[in-house]
Amino acid sequence: MPKIVTFGEVMMRLTPPNFARLSQTTSFNMTIGGGEANVAMSLADFGFEAAHVTRFPDHALGHRAARFLRERGLDISPILFGGSRLGTYFLEEGASMRASQIVYDRQHSAFSELQPGMIDWETVLKDADWFHWAGITPALSQGCADVCLEAVQTAKRLGVKVSGDVFYRTNLWQYGKTPQEIIPELTHHTDLVNSSKGVLDLLFGFTSTDFTDACQQLQSAFPSVKWVADTERTQHSASHNDLSATLWNGETLLKTPTFTIDPIIDRIGGGDAFVAGLIYGLTQFNDRSADGAAFRAEQEALTFAVAASALKHTIPGDANDCSVAEVEAIASGQTSGRIKR
Amino acid sequence: MPKIVTFGEVMMRLTPPNFARLSQTTSFNMTIGGGEANVAMSLADFGFEAAHVTRFPDHALGHRAARFLRERGLDISPILFGGSRLGTYFLEEGASMRASQIVYDRQHSAFSELQPGMIDWETVLKDADWFHWAGITPALSQGCADVCLEAVQTAKRLGVKVSGDVFYRTNLWQYGKTPQEIIPELTHHTDLVNSSKGVLDLLFGFTSTDFTDACQQLQSAFPSVKWVADTERTQHSASHNDLSATLWNGETLLKTPTFTIDPIIDRIGGGDAFVAGLIYGLTQFNDRSADGAAFRAEQEALTFAVAASALKHTIPGDANDCSVAEVEAIASGQTSGRIKR
Amino acid sequence: MPKIVTFGEVMMRLTPPNFARLSQTTSFNMTIGGGEANVAMSLADFGFEAAHVTRFPDHALGHRAARFLRERGLDISPILFGGSRLGTYFLEEGASMRASQIVYDRQHSAFSELQPGMIDWETVLKDADWFHWAGITPALSQGCADVCLEAVQTAKRLGVKVSGDVFYRTNLWQYGKTPQEIIPELTHHTDLVNSSKGVLDLLFGFTSTDFTDACQQLQSAFPSVKWVADTERTQHSASHNDLSATLWNGETLLKTPTFTIDPIIDRIGGGDAFVAGLIYGLTQFNDRSADGAAFRAEQEALTFAVAASALKHTIPGDANDCSVAEVEAIASGQTSGRIKR
Amino acid sequence: MPKIVTFGEVMMRLTPPNFARLSQTTSFNMTIGGGEANVAMSLADFGFEAAHVTRFPDHALGHRAARFLRERGLDISPILFGGSRLGTYFLEEGASMRASQIVYDRQHSAFSELQPGMIDWETVLKDADWFHWAGITPALSQGCADVCLEAVQTAKRLGVKVSGDVFYRTNLWQYGKTPQEIIPELTHHTDLVNSSKGVLDLLFGFTSTDFTDACQQLQSAFPSVKWVADTERTQHSASHNDLSATLWNGETLLKTPTFTIDPIIDRIGGGDAFVAGLIYGLTQFNDRSADGAAFRAEQEALTFAVAASALKHTIPGDANDCSVAEVEAIASGQTSGRIKR
Amino acid sequence: MPKIVTFGEVMMRLTPPNFARLSQTTSFNMTIGGGEANVAMSLADFGFEAAHVTRFPDHALGHRAARFLRERGLDISPILFGGSRLGTYFLEEGASMRASQIVYDRQHSAFSELQPGMIDWETVLKDADWFHWAGITPALSQGCADVCLEAVQTAKRLGVKVSGDVFYRTNLWQYGKTPQEIIPELTHHTDLVNSSKGVLDLLFGFTSTDFTDACQQLQSAFPSVKWVADTERTQHSASHNDLSATLWNGETLLKTPTFTIDPIIDRIGGGDAFVAGLIYGLTQFNDRSADGAAFRAEQEALTFAVAASALKHTIPGDANDCSVAEVEAIASGQTSGRIKR
Amino acid sequence: MPKIVTFGEVMMRLTPPNFARLSQTTSFNMTIGGGEANVAMSLADFGFEAAHVTRFPDHALGHRAARFLRERGLDISPILFGGSRLGTYFLEEGASMRASQIVYDRQHSAFSELQPGMIDWETVLKDADWFHWAGITPALSQGCADVCLEAVQTAKRLGVKVSGDVFYRTNLWQYGKTPQEIIPELTHHTDLVNSSKGVLDLLFGFTSTDFTDACQQLQSAFPSVKWVADTERTQHSASHNDLSATLWNGETLLKTPTFTIDPIIDRIGGGDAFVAGLIYGLTQFNDRSADGAAFRAEQEALTFAVAASALKHTIPGDANDCSVAEVEAIASGQTSGRIKR
Repeated sequence: MPKIVTFGEVMMRLTPPNFARLSQTTSFNMTIGGGEANVAMSLADFGFEAAHVTRFPDHALGHRAARFLRERGLDISPILFGGSRLGTYFLEEGASMRASQIVYDRQHSAFSELQPGMIDWETVLKDADWFHWAGITPALSQGCADVCLEAVQTAKRLGVKVSGDVFYRTNLWQYGKTPQEIIPELTHHTDLVNSSKGVLDLLFGFTSTDFTDACQQLQSAFPSVKWVADTERTQHSASHNDLSATLWNGETLLKTPTFTIDPIIDRIGGGDAFVAGLIYGLTQFNDRSADGAAFRAEQEALTFAVAASALKHTIPGDANDCSVAEVEAIASGQTSGRIKR
Repeated sequence: MPKIVTFGEVMMRLTPPNFARLSQTTSFNMTIGGGEANVAMSLADFGFEAAHVTRFPDHALGHRAARFLRERGLDISPILFGGSRLGTYFLEEGASMRASQIVYDRQHSAFSELQPGMIDWETVLKDADWFHWAGITPALSQGCADVCLEAVQTAKRLGVKVSGDVFYRTNLWQYGKTPQEIIPELTHHTDLVNSSKGVLDLLFGFTSTDFTDACQQLQSAFPSVKWVADTERTQHSASHNDLSATLWNGETLLKTPTFTIDPIIDRIGGGDAFVAGLIYGLTQFNDRSADGAAFRAEQEALTFAVAASALKHTIPGDANDCSVAEVEAIASGQTSGRIKR
Repeated sequence: MPKIVTFGEVMMRLTPPNFARLSQTTSFNMTIGGGEANVAMSLADFGFEAAHVTRFPDHALGHRAARFLRERGLDISPILFGGSRLGTYFLEEGASMRASQIVYDRQHSAFSELQPGMIDWETVLKDADWFHWAGITPALSQGCADVCLEAVQTAKRLGVKVSGDVFYRTNLWQYGKTPQEIIPELTHHTDLVNSSKGVLDLLFGFTSTDFTDACQQLQSAFPSVKWVADTERTQHSASHNDLSATLWNGETLLKTPTFTIDPIIDRIGGGDAFVAGLIYGLTQFNDRSADGAAFRAEQEALTFAVAASALKHTIPGDANDCSVAEVEAIASGQTSGRIKR
Repeated sequence: MPKIVTFGEVMMRLTPPNFARLSQTTSFNMTIGGGEANVAMSLADFGFEAAHVTRFPDHALGHRAARFLRERGLDISPILFGGSRLGTYFLEEGASMRASQIVYDRQHSAFSELQPGMIDWETVLKDADWFHWAGITPALSQGCADVCLEAVQTAKRLGVKVSGDVFYRTNLWQYGKTPQEIIPELTHHTDLVNSSKGVLDLLFGFTSTDFTDACQQLQSAFPSVKWVADTERTQHSASHNDLSATLWNGETLLKTPTFTIDPIIDRIGGGDAFVAGLIYGLTQFNDRSADGAAFRAEQEALTFAVAASALKHTIPGDANDCSVAEVEAIASGQTSGRIKR
Repeated sequence: MPKIVTFGEVMMRLTPPNFARLSQTTSFNMTIGGGEANVAMSLADFGFEAAHVTRFPDHALGHRAARFLRERGLDISPILFGGSRLGTYFLEEGASMRASQIVYDRQHSAFSELQPGMIDWETVLKDADWFHWAGITPALSQGCADVCLEAVQTAKRLGVKVSGDVFYRTNLWQYGKTPQEIIPELTHHTDLVNSSKGVLDLLFGFTSTDFTDACQQLQSAFPSVKWVADTERTQHSASHNDLSATLWNGETLLKTPTFTIDPIIDRIGGGDAFVAGLIYGLTQFNDRSADGAAFRAEQEALTFAVAASALKHTIPGDANDCSVAEVEAIASGQTSGRIKR
Repeated sequence: MPKIVTFGEVMMRLTPPNFARLSQTTSFNMTIGGGEANVAMSLADFGFEAAHVTRFPDHALGHRAARFLRERGLDISPILFGGSRLGTYFLEEGASMRASQIVYDRQHSAFSELQPGMIDWETVLKDADWFHWAGITPALSQGCADVCLEAVQTAKRLGVKVSGDVFYRTNLWQYGKTPQEIIPELTHHTDLVNSSKGVLDLLFGFTSTDFTDACQQLQSAFPSVKWVADTERTQHSASHNDLSATLWNGETLLKTPTFTIDPIIDRIGGGDAFVAGLIYGLTQFNDRSADGAAFRAEQEALTFAVAASALKHTIPGDANDCSVAEVEAIASGQTSGRIKR
């Protein structure tokens, strides 16, 4: 099985039980997660060798977080310990028309204080087959942006495939740079981009007519990009979403059927589960198709990815927690929920 | 911001967790609520100054209840302490076709033993802008009915606007009077009546053809009544309701769009949240419309009120627990439940 | 009221809370149940005298299980204590497209080691009006199959009506016999068979065209069989099922309306609740119809049974936990979930 | 084994978890208990046939309470259903110097409204060997006092042994009678009295010099009284008590060693566990001593009783929940808490 | 009753349940507290008018904290909303020899970013009788130190009595100043100092021979200081402490008896409960002694204070939660934990 | 740091919360543990490289258990998956005089069905420095005894140090062999024996006069044995134990001071924590003493070991969960439980 290395902040998530509001609660359930680590944890369940690179404070909470990643099968030896804070977020879970709300408390985290040179990327990426980054990391601080660039440059040099979750959160980017100044450089080293027409237009200055057009413009500007993926979500309510996905492979736009999720058990990490599923499919399904029918394999990979994401919405916690066989069952349409004995 | 004063019994609510039946449970979650106090708590969240008048036993449970109201922002200085029981109700939460069930244990409560003269209404209502009562209070005892009459009479004398939740519960009114003997007198001092065609016919002896007709008969009989409001609820199941509302303003019948609630997190207090929303809208939105377009303001108030009620169905506890901005978002159609970060 | 005696294994059920996966959980909710005992518990709620026959280990867990059955109103005096294990199953509750999963840990249970002669069926069935068995018992061990045969033979000899839940689980039958060798003998002593066309074909070697045809073939082969019942379930997801039922009475095929269950609170024991409802209806509704209109009574019984099953899906635990009046309300279409005060 | 019948109010107990004060809690653990029923439940564990007589409201909470007694092995067929309230008490559990506090909410309970003639004592006490009452019952209402008198008179007439827990709570006796007017009549029919010097002096007007003197005066006045028992408790704190007991058998004063309880898990029902242990010992140990050495048997019974009481302090809930063998181990000095595997 | 105003940071406290270590936990219980606010909450329970001054972020967690203070009876109108973080601390509760451990996450809190001029002390302290500060505030930032100085200067000018909790935490004071540079100026405006010989020597450069000597040196240097108080704690283990206290009143050293606390339920806030008790006693007991026997009143106040602190150790949460009567009972030696009914 | 390899069954532990009895509980807390794995987990916390060898069923529960070991830092790659059952035990936690009770449900576990040849000991033990086994493994089945012998033989051949926890449980050894037939062979390959005089006499047929005598006889018979250790426990109650230890090093008998544990939070695994501490000390402290003062190092190791065991009694779960620094603090007498900030 391939080896994936992911890089990004990992936070403690505190959630009031039983749909209580933050204003009401007297306790919190705790879990650990982070966009990129979620990808690694899911791929570890799928059989990949997986390691995550991050920085935790060297106190009980930092070690609690590391222990959680280890439980989920990640190699935690590349994790740095230092700094003072573990990034935290408070999740109020909504239902029906009431949206979930997140209060972030991540400023000054150990991760956000990363500086170039702290991580020995040569060692970390040696033997890796795939590296994954996301758009939050360069949004946190100049140091994080610099270290992320170190990572993708090293990955490219070592022949490691790179995926990037290219999106934009307005309440970050507070250190003086804009995403337009930073993201393009990272994209130059990326094979698989997960993004949307709107974000591509915003970050790269395109004025595309549709997703395909945006993808084509992206590939023109960044020749390394081989695939561009996106999920489509119809949000009936906080409890009921429909999900499908598209993948541009440089030649054609692949689409999946729509999966209904009602009720949603845990919305967080749905996109990360999609990325994990796509990496699994793109690396594993090619091997299966003896006749080199890449398109069919990519179609299969895309359906696997959206099925993985749909399934994630039914599983508590930030990271997907299921097997390849379980995802394949959903992908093949076994969504009736019949009890397995 | 205006000052609201509400009056009514406040009870301890005991709910088995996780949809357990009362026959099965070994624990209860506890909260505090009461129809009129729920209105005050919601309006306190909306920025009103708010006080509640009730009577609690002078022991740990009575003070627990008072502390809850204080936490939610109410002025509890008018509360009397005496008597021996805190009214209690046990709520079994249903799902799908199984209805929620309530076992009341409210007889002989400290509140039900109220007697005229116990409350200094002149002081309590001084500086108040709005007073709210509901049809349960006069149904509990002659003393409660008398004190409620004291309240509305004093309110009128002091120029305080009055709203009344006029409904009928068959298992109350056990002290020798019928609602037909008591409610009309109270209605004579009321500006805003929340009721339905059926209840109006039953309590006032109308034989109306529809809600508008009932409202017109009500206004003929009780000239003080300026508005009559009602909510309409399509109950698909204990977990899934649709909600809309109507308001008769003396000239026309305003209606709202329908809001879907699926799943319902907590059905209790939905009507009180509506009343709170309506009082907020009727007092605040008039101020906004420079051109005095009262109808548009009333339409806006009605939609705000039903949005507040719909949102309440997603929030645990008897009283609504949300801000004006959150209600306005629902009222404006933002019901997709997209995560707020 | 009649007396029901049921026979079968009773297990401890361990369920992670809040939809957690088995891979994630750090605690379990515990309840006690078993297909046949579930029938007895439900009928005890309906007013039947009810006794259950099983075998528990003579240690704290075995007595915990017996105490649970006693709480639910069963006569536990026929229970044997011996052996070493209490059969256990771990239930992971699914939602949306994620199916619930069961891990059984029932091998070597005290019950599975039953041997002929251990139970004094003459005494146990004296005064009984109805005996119920299910297809899992003979699938566990030769001893269990033998004891089950003792039971139905004694019941027939004593004029006790017999019902059998005739189904097939592939992961049982590991002691050397096939169901085709065992089930027919048991069916020869059975009045009411709960099964499906597919199972009847599989177990009895029919090649029926439809359910009616299978029922007719069954009655030809087993003249004791008076009724054959089946439920139909449309599984939209693990959270949303539709349910209806059919009953062949030897002359005609009765059908019920469809009941929607959304969300499902607890899927386990839905079939047992149906059987309990059917036994209740078939024994009690005949008495009500002065004109002897048996078909109408059977139709009423069938609707009662499927309403009981639907209601069970909303109640936590293995066994139904509701009254006749509550089931009748559902059967009569009161499924709007309106709060009962 | 003998049959015990007990009579008295059974209440719902609501306890904040984790030593929270009533002023702080947002949930309650629930259990069911009552002084006399606790005696029956413990004796049922010891192998007695046991029935309890009480009155519950005919709603979900009343049936919840009855189901609890049934779980614990009591015959609940003599229980009456009627009235409107289930007596309730709220227990705040103390620790160290902070005392536990109880808020009673038992007025107007279904039990307190009992009237003479409601219970068919002839039937209830037929086949009984022992009847137990306590001093709370006649303190609740004239009706309760009358029914208690019916019970002890019938018991005596039928040759049933009678025990009475003779104590005094100042916050009861609010219906116009004093205990001095009522208790003596009940004591005339009682064989075993559980009381203290102070209470005997207060209720019967003695001015005794010590416990023995009080017992002798009691026996002079009430010839039916064969034994008088008392427990002695050194209360170091709410968490740490020492316990011993004395028994006057008409000739000599027996004493037990002292048992240390640290920490106390649940203090409620310690006295009831003592009475149950004493009834067990006085009825069972006589049978064991072939040489009729009654004193030795009584000494053994007394030690068994105080060991049972001490063990109760380590068990959650109102009623003791342990076997004869477990009590005998404590009585014989096995108090080191060594793990049993 | 007097009015107390307190000033200081208020934090969210997150505690793993059931003595779990931080390394193990998957959930946290949440409460709100802060040394100075704890004093105010306790005095509010004792009947004081009480207000707290602090700064919270203007998001759901900040408002959650404010709501908690309001529940406990504090006037929250002086609270400022701004900044981004709510100070947080994680408490691992120890037992026996295992010490409790705290992980602070308070840097960059909204409170720590306070600047002079933000708080209108004239308005806040108008009508106040007593102001309380503690040594943590000036340790957080220059801004906090400056604002604290504003407060005590204004208090003195307005004739408000001032108490200060003068202690030293090594892991604070990271903004460039030493406590020796800051604390003396604050002490110049303080009437009641809560400190120890060791701390006084450290902060003020004394080389005292004992506590009395240190107090005398303090009074020489700071004539405003009228009382110096200290508690003495014998720590047998994390579960078992003995507690007593001393008070220097300028003439004599008063001492209290020792209170044993075993087990400790919640150690946090024990010192704050002492200060609250002392302020209560020093202000209230003087009033009681008609003959002006100040020493006797001070002795009574000191015993009340240490009793309040001991009781706090048995109550969950940061702030004491009990009445004057409850403390007086402990102070008078009623520590046997006998159940209060 | 050295590498430890441990071998033995790992079970799921199910514990009723809040001291409930098994007869009362409706839920269980779950953890994972096993004597030998507990040693490995503790040593992993102390910085050792650690691997555990066991066999789990290849279903969700088996993988849950493996994930737990991975979380705690063990290399789980040597674990075999197969068989059908995960060994389980139910722990009822006692208090005061009530002993904790364990109901084992471990028969037919995947581990107990191990057969020689299944484990590639050469590979597993390559690079290991220490191997640990315990007396339960050979008590389970002939296969387990055989595999254990394979392990110690291979360890010896590879020069790996071996420790053995030599004790005797009467309710095991049910497969036809006695411990006297099996344990000696294993002891021939063991360097460090953890046992007691009584067990040594029983298993090896000694009639020793005291522990030292038994140790000397053991060393005569088994020259490989270098150390014999034992703990001494004074059991005041289930909540309060005193703990000390002795170590025979072939020349002298070392002893430790006594540590008081009151209250005990979790008694399970106390012996395993001792063994882990001893292995740590015996391997690490030798390195520290430049002058080769082995006795002093052994004394230090023994005190470290008993301090580790004492600390374990305060930590929930089967395995110790603490750092070297925390144990050293206890060993050096810092047992006052003073809060660490």
